[in-house]
Amino acid sequence: MRRRKKKGADKKLLSYTDYVIQNPIEFKGRWGKKFDNENPIYLELGMGRGKFLTTLAQKYKDINFIGIEMKEEVLLKAVEKAYEKSVENILFIWADANKLREYFDDGELKRIFINFCDPWPKKRWAKRRLTHHRFLDIYKNILTNEGEIHFKTDNEKLFEFSLNEFCNVDLKLKNISLNLKESEFEENITTEYEEKFMGQGLEIYRCEGKK
Amino acid sequence: MRRRKKKGADKKLLSYTDYVIQNPIEFKGRWGKKFDNENPIYLELGMGRGKFLTTLAQKYKDINFIGIEMKEEVLLKAVEKAYEKSVENILFIWADANKLREYFDDGELKRIFINFCDPWPKKRWAKRRLTHHRFLDIYKNILTNEGEIHFKTDNEKLFEFSLNEFCNVDLKLKNISLNLKESEFEENITTEYEEKFMGQGLEIYRCEGKK
Repeated sequence: MRRRKKKGADKKLLSYTDYVIQNPIEFKGRWGKKFDNENPIYLELGMGRGKFLTTLAQKYKDINFIGIEMKEEVLLKAVEKAYEKSVENILFIWADANKLREYFDDGELKRIFINFCDPWPKKRWAKRRLTHHRFLDIYKNILTNEGEIHFKTDNEKLFEFSLNEFCNVDLKLKNISLNLKESEFEENITTEYEEKFMGQGLEIYRCEGKK
Repeated sequence: MRRRKKKGADKKLLSYTDYVIQNPIEFKGRWGKKFDNENPIYLELGMGRGKFLTTLAQKYKDINFIGIEMKEEVLLKAVEKAYEKSVENILFIWADANKLREYFDDGELKRIFINFCDPWPKKRWAKRRLTHHRFLDIYKNILTNEGEIHFKTDNEKLFEFSLNEFCNVDLKLKNISLNLKESEFEENITTEYEEKFMGQGLEIYRCEGKK
């Protein structure tokens, strides 16, 4: 299904000049300067409507947050959330998450969140999954020493694939949950998608991989 | 429920002198000599009626297999299987799997199998689970360098716990399956319990941890 574009979303988006970065390449190696502090930077890939990241940013003022999203309609919702709440430690990149290596320098990020990404279920699509080892290798480069990837999904097959890929690139797994609702992990901040999904009583899988 | 003892099983067991070891402490550090070769040794903990281990032993003649089981009734079934098929590369220890450190020297085993062990579901019982880190630390001692633990269970909670415990003691995870029947792991040899369980269409979890 072709995505229906919301008229005027792109123009509106660009009016939020304090929040929206259109040319992330410009800031490669200089994100700390952009935030005007030396706090650690957490990135969310494909952050959608931004509930997860905005909630985190409000809770942890001494961390800088960046969300990447291609789709202007959902990105606009995220930006509006941040603007309404005057969140200062957050930026949004309106670009393709596939090109991370061009946006971030070695060791520039402390943590990367991947929440409910596309499972690309067919085997021949494996390379497109955001937890494929070719992506994990890129994440490892742009993460600090001991930097972490935090991953959530509702797709069992994708989770199984991802656990094995984390192992394949020598990321140290921890806090693995096969059913997040019943697990002992207390600090779960939900995404919009996750809330709907959990409400149906379905399982959410989660893990962390440490460099 | 108290286990019902089958009359005469213990005496019958002891008549299989070529197969049954009653005092495993005697052979600590000398299992290779007992097998009369230098082949690698694979151990199964609580191997029950022995289908899994006997099948493996018939398939891999250049590996030595040891099964540990406390319950004489089920152990007897395993021993009879091996005897009927004249399997030569297998021995059975009639003893408590809790005392492994007394039976094996450092680096004496190449692989340990744990199949469908008791999940001990209550939190206060965690220490009794065969994948609790205090056991994993013992296994690591008696395994060779690059030795492996292969684990299967039908219990999701136990599997989640076990994955995290493997990580906690720095065992390198691989070949993680969240649904063995649908996974790409082709060389699965089933246990009696597993066959019955898979027949009901339920999920089997499996992983390997490498030292």
